[in-house]
Amino acid sequence: MRRKMKAIVKHERNFGAKLMEVVIPEIKDDEVLIKVKATSICGTDVHIYTWDEWSQSRVNPPYVFGHEFSGIVEEVGSNVTNVNVGDYVSAETHIVCGQCPQCLSGNAHICKNTEIIGVDRDGCFAEFVVLPATNLWKNDPSMPLDVASIQEPFGNAVHTVLAQGVAGKSVAIIGCGPIGLMAVTVAKACGASHVFAFDLNDYRLRLAKEMGATSVVNSERENPLSVVNRITDGNGVDVVCEMSGHPIAMDQGFKMVTNGGVVSILSLPVRPVEIDVTNDIVFKGITVHGITGRKMYKTWQQVSGLLKSTEVNLKPMITHHLKLEEFEKGFDLMIKGQCGKVVLHP
Amino acid sequence: MRRKMKAIVKHERNFGAKLMEVVIPEIKDDEVLIKVKATSICGTDVHIYTWDEWSQSRVNPPYVFGHEFSGIVEEVGSNVTNVNVGDYVSAETHIVCGQCPQCLSGNAHICKNTEIIGVDRDGCFAEFVVLPATNLWKNDPSMPLDVASIQEPFGNAVHTVLAQGVAGKSVAIIGCGPIGLMAVTVAKACGASHVFAFDLNDYRLRLAKEMGATSVVNSERENPLSVVNRITDGNGVDVVCEMSGHPIAMDQGFKMVTNGGVVSILSLPVRPVEIDVTNDIVFKGITVHGITGRKMYKTWQQVSGLLKSTEVNLKPMITHHLKLEEFEKGFDLMIKGQCGKVVLHP
Amino acid sequence: MRRKMKAIVKHERNFGAKLMEVVIPEIKDDEVLIKVKATSICGTDVHIYTWDEWSQSRVNPPYVFGHEFSGIVEEVGSNVTNVNVGDYVSAETHIVCGQCPQCLSGNAHICKNTEIIGVDRDGCFAEFVVLPATNLWKNDPSMPLDVASIQEPFGNAVHTVLAQGVAGKSVAIIGCGPIGLMAVTVAKACGASHVFAFDLNDYRLRLAKEMGATSVVNSERENPLSVVNRITDGNGVDVVCEMSGHPIAMDQGFKMVTNGGVVSILSLPVRPVEIDVTNDIVFKGITVHGITGRKMYKTWQQVSGLLKSTEVNLKPMITHHLKLEEFEKGFDLMIKGQCGKVVLHP
Amino acid sequence: MRRKMKAIVKHERNFGAKLMEVVIPEIKDDEVLIKVKATSICGTDVHIYTWDEWSQSRVNPPYVFGHEFSGIVEEVGSNVTNVNVGDYVSAETHIVCGQCPQCLSGNAHICKNTEIIGVDRDGCFAEFVVLPATNLWKNDPSMPLDVASIQEPFGNAVHTVLAQGVAGKSVAIIGCGPIGLMAVTVAKACGASHVFAFDLNDYRLRLAKEMGATSVVNSERENPLSVVNRITDGNGVDVVCEMSGHPIAMDQGFKMVTNGGVVSILSLPVRPVEIDVTNDIVFKGITVHGITGRKMYKTWQQVSGLLKSTEVNLKPMITHHLKLEEFEKGFDLMIKGQCGKVVLHP
Repeated sequence: MRRKMKAIVKHERNFGAKLMEVVIPEIKDDEVLIKVKATSICGTDVHIYTWDEWSQSRVNPPYVFGHEFSGIVEEVGSNVTNVNVGDYVSAETHIVCGQCPQCLSGNAHICKNTEIIGVDRDGCFAEFVVLPATNLWKNDPSMPLDVASIQEPFGNAVHTVLAQGVAGKSVAIIGCGPIGLMAVTVAKACGASHVFAFDLNDYRLRLAKEMGATSVVNSERENPLSVVNRITDGNGVDVVCEMSGHPIAMDQGFKMVTNGGVVSILSLPVRPVEIDVTNDIVFKGITVHGITGRKMYKTWQQVSGLLKSTEVNLKPMITHHLKLEEFEKGFDLMIKGQCGKVVLHP
Repeated sequence: MRRKMKAIVKHERNFGAKLMEVVIPEIKDDEVLIKVKATSICGTDVHIYTWDEWSQSRVNPPYVFGHEFSGIVEEVGSNVTNVNVGDYVSAETHIVCGQCPQCLSGNAHICKNTEIIGVDRDGCFAEFVVLPATNLWKNDPSMPLDVASIQEPFGNAVHTVLAQGVAGKSVAIIGCGPIGLMAVTVAKACGASHVFAFDLNDYRLRLAKEMGATSVVNSERENPLSVVNRITDGNGVDVVCEMSGHPIAMDQGFKMVTNGGVVSILSLPVRPVEIDVTNDIVFKGITVHGITGRKMYKTWQQVSGLLKSTEVNLKPMITHHLKLEEFEKGFDLMIKGQCGKVVLHP
Repeated sequence: MRRKMKAIVKHERNFGAKLMEVVIPEIKDDEVLIKVKATSICGTDVHIYTWDEWSQSRVNPPYVFGHEFSGIVEEVGSNVTNVNVGDYVSAETHIVCGQCPQCLSGNAHICKNTEIIGVDRDGCFAEFVVLPATNLWKNDPSMPLDVASIQEPFGNAVHTVLAQGVAGKSVAIIGCGPIGLMAVTVAKACGASHVFAFDLNDYRLRLAKEMGATSVVNSERENPLSVVNRITDGNGVDVVCEMSGHPIAMDQGFKMVTNGGVVSILSLPVRPVEIDVTNDIVFKGITVHGITGRKMYKTWQQVSGLLKSTEVNLKPMITHHLKLEEFEKGFDLMIKGQCGKVVLHP
Repeated sequence: MRRKMKAIVKHERNFGAKLMEVVIPEIKDDEVLIKVKATSICGTDVHIYTWDEWSQSRVNPPYVFGHEFSGIVEEVGSNVTNVNVGDYVSAETHIVCGQCPQCLSGNAHICKNTEIIGVDRDGCFAEFVVLPATNLWKNDPSMPLDVASIQEPFGNAVHTVLAQGVAGKSVAIIGCGPIGLMAVTVAKACGASHVFAFDLNDYRLRLAKEMGATSVVNSERENPLSVVNRITDGNGVDVVCEMSGHPIAMDQGFKMVTNGGVVSILSLPVRPVEIDVTNDIVFKGITVHGITGRKMYKTWQQVSGLLKSTEVNLKPMITHHLKLEEFEKGFDLMIKGQCGKVVLHP
């Protein structure tokens, strides 16, 4: 008889999820079974939980969701050589084909045949998760479980901020959700001269200050463009990291970037955005980067390197620790924006 | 008494221009007087000639317009050391401040204090033109006068195509006006595996074929996306050079570029453009470059280098040679799109 | 009973090799058996054949050598998904670990655990060869067998020349062995303004001319630095590709490169080289690239792209076609330098 | 009658220098007279002071030397527009031609016609110095005089460390003279995961620790390669900044860099260096950068940006403040290596 485990299941095509007992999946020759020690809630999980338009068109309940975690290898398939039972690991959540032009040229993170853990297959909001061995990342034994569990979204922040050099440059982070907050500390740790943090949520702006932002601006109360103008002597910022997905905020990003600057976009606006291509892109001679996932595995190497540096401390933004069973409380905090990162412990 | 010369003057705030006798301007210590031998008509000149919205808000008649030329140095100011009387020259048309952050970091082409020859000050549709010495570019004596006169727009094509490497890549040129036609030959000469040329104008598409395009597509008669899909086995093109300014064509550009590809935009859409940021920029992980002018003077060095190579031949696209007096015929051809490049000879 | 095949075996620790009947190897689950249709002789094979110092310390006779080929898939292992029986393929010759920092960051070509086909395991101077499926590269059906067989060394040329942009730049190829000859055509096809080819061998210099070199110089009869000086107006060349391995030639490379230029080194000098670091590297502010193998698989994509372009024609440098049995004649031509590329047909 | 000032004059072709009264130079139309407030001693000044081989062949006594300073604009030429009397400035010390291919392509720092302040013309070890206006850099009013005076060598450190990204990477600084010490803090402030500092001088290594180095190694007492090997799990360091000029140390740099890593060389070895090109450059696939001066003026922008960041504090390494008259004591400290940076106050 197959062993069972607790898991948070997206059980039906509706708001919410349910803690259930499910069978622990079996591994194939190139897969690994991991005992989950910590798993954090991502904005994507909130989309699935609240059953928004995107999730309705993408995921197929019932299944176990969740994709950010740290854990211990419990069992390895017969062909696995890169990890051993007992290893302390986290995982890249994009499972890629390895054969398309993108995969073959070092751009696997934008593989057209990507399958995402917790979206397209069972995830890690559970006591155990099964993954392809090649997706695992070995953690330094000294890394706390909660920090290890948020490396995946930290990787998004690193990928976005380091899509261009920031040393000695001014950087604006637009949108201070968890990834935006981590982007603040990445920019700061990588030599930014000034880090602007913009949001409408004062709770999150307080965290942005704690993460190292030089100027923290509530865009409802102060005009972001005026602030930038004043502090940069009218030059504008060198690098904009757009993480809000809001068309007005995005427009402000294009307006505040200096000639020759860079706008890196990680956010996913729900509908097409009007952009003044002529004045905001062409005449300014700027570069725009679309950012998806994490470079496989260059970004993970940067993540490890930055977490080794004393300059990066993610602890202040891990604001809540809950038992797996308390997931509803965690999702509630995320929906209200009254949290940094919420970590569940199975 | 001051000497006079013939010049095409934008004489009033209305359609058209007028051949007039005007005083030959005097040079300052750091300026140079050049006898114009060949001067070509740019799309910008057509905007001014037809007196469109943009030109109404930007230029101040009466003044001499025109900015593409080749000529011989006639007189040099007392502080000039880089050119001598008798030198064969063309010129960069952006006069920049040299002191702003952009100028100081090697990005003078996007200086915020740029003054443009023939737009913000007198230009070269005349027998003589006065320019700052630092804007002059010495031509190889073997270069034909007409080819030398179109180096400035050729520089736009070079700047756009070489904003990223194209060696071994597929490249799409959207919009086959004169700069698009030159972009075709640049892509071809720099190792593109396949060059797609899109336009609605069959005259221009015939020229694109002559300039080396591998696939020439009338976007009204064939669906550009289907053509790209078929030829690239569904992968899309690596590099898109958007030179049409048309929102539908631009959208097609974003749709046809492959994941991780590049869209370089030189065109100036007349109003904001709706872009599907989520699907066409972020999920695809592409890079978008806004292109203005020519890198000062790295692009000019590339222009000289490419024109030395036997792979680049601009002659087929110089379709009309006229006397300065025949400018109205030239503008008429440009308005109708029944020409490649039109060169006037004072 | 196991089937047998003809193969050129490095049979003993001495000069030469021997045509023998050997057992056709069996494939593992992730391997593929390929029927070799064309296989070309590399400089490395000559080292092994002549049993020089390097090969004495590296290879373990008896084994089948050779690593450049094209062929048809004959049999695939049970886990293979990227190729099918009947596919027309060539192969990357570096078999890498996939787990080291280099492999994980897109630099598998410099994996520290690399095993090389025909050096560290049986190669392709035979009727059949067995390889890991992931090392195979599918060829366009229209590609001639001999051209397909030399894609691997062509990849070296592409990797070296495109280690930096060459569009509009002057490029010097030092050493016109087969890879140097291919580098000439790559530089030319990718927009180089001027391609210098240096060697001591007039046969090879004639081929360099045929491949598109603008200046062909016998370094014994003319001083390379004087030639460069004269043609570049004293500026020096922008890019040097060092493919000779000779210390004097390498020194000339460092002397002829312009301030801010690039020296890309693919050659393997047999002992340490004295370099005037202060004057030739630091004061000049140049960049030096060490080049190994081919980027996996970005270089292969560039190779395919460039071979699709009409600008690249490798045919003139494939000077000899021999039967597998005539390998001694082939090696003799290679040793004497009286050939371009020699292709053997099993 | 012309006004006089105190200046340290390299008065004869011999060891030493002399404090003298000299005439305050007059400015040309494009020049500026600056009242020197702080001026620091560079290694180059020590070469000139001790009259070594290099200085014997380069400088022409008698003249005023020194090139690092901060001061106040006292008088501006008639054509000067970028600074005003009273401005607080420092200066780029390379006076360049503006017309060569390097200057025209944004590489003025390696202009072949460079004239260096304090080497090729009178410098700033004096109460006043005259400079071309375009060489001046305006300082933030809040910047201390001593910090402002060492921006020029800090720029060397910035140029070297940021010749490649260091975020999340391990970095080795070989040679902890003043520029090496500053390179430690730059690497640290720009996100390096680990900064190794190597030297033979314990005084300097103590300063390296204070500047933020993670591992401080006296290369005489510990084998640098063993240390790197142990701490990087045998992988080697990602980036080496060679600032010692010593052939053994440089060789260790090439041995400790990981495959695909970068070696940036700012030092000036007195004679050619033997480099194992095959094993240390080619097989490893590394990149070597020669570093001269500061990018004009991109590096100065980075300098300003980094000094604004709270992560960079140069104060600990400014170990000595002396009056201009005490220059002999300052040079003595520099010769003995018992100092960080020595600042003279006229």
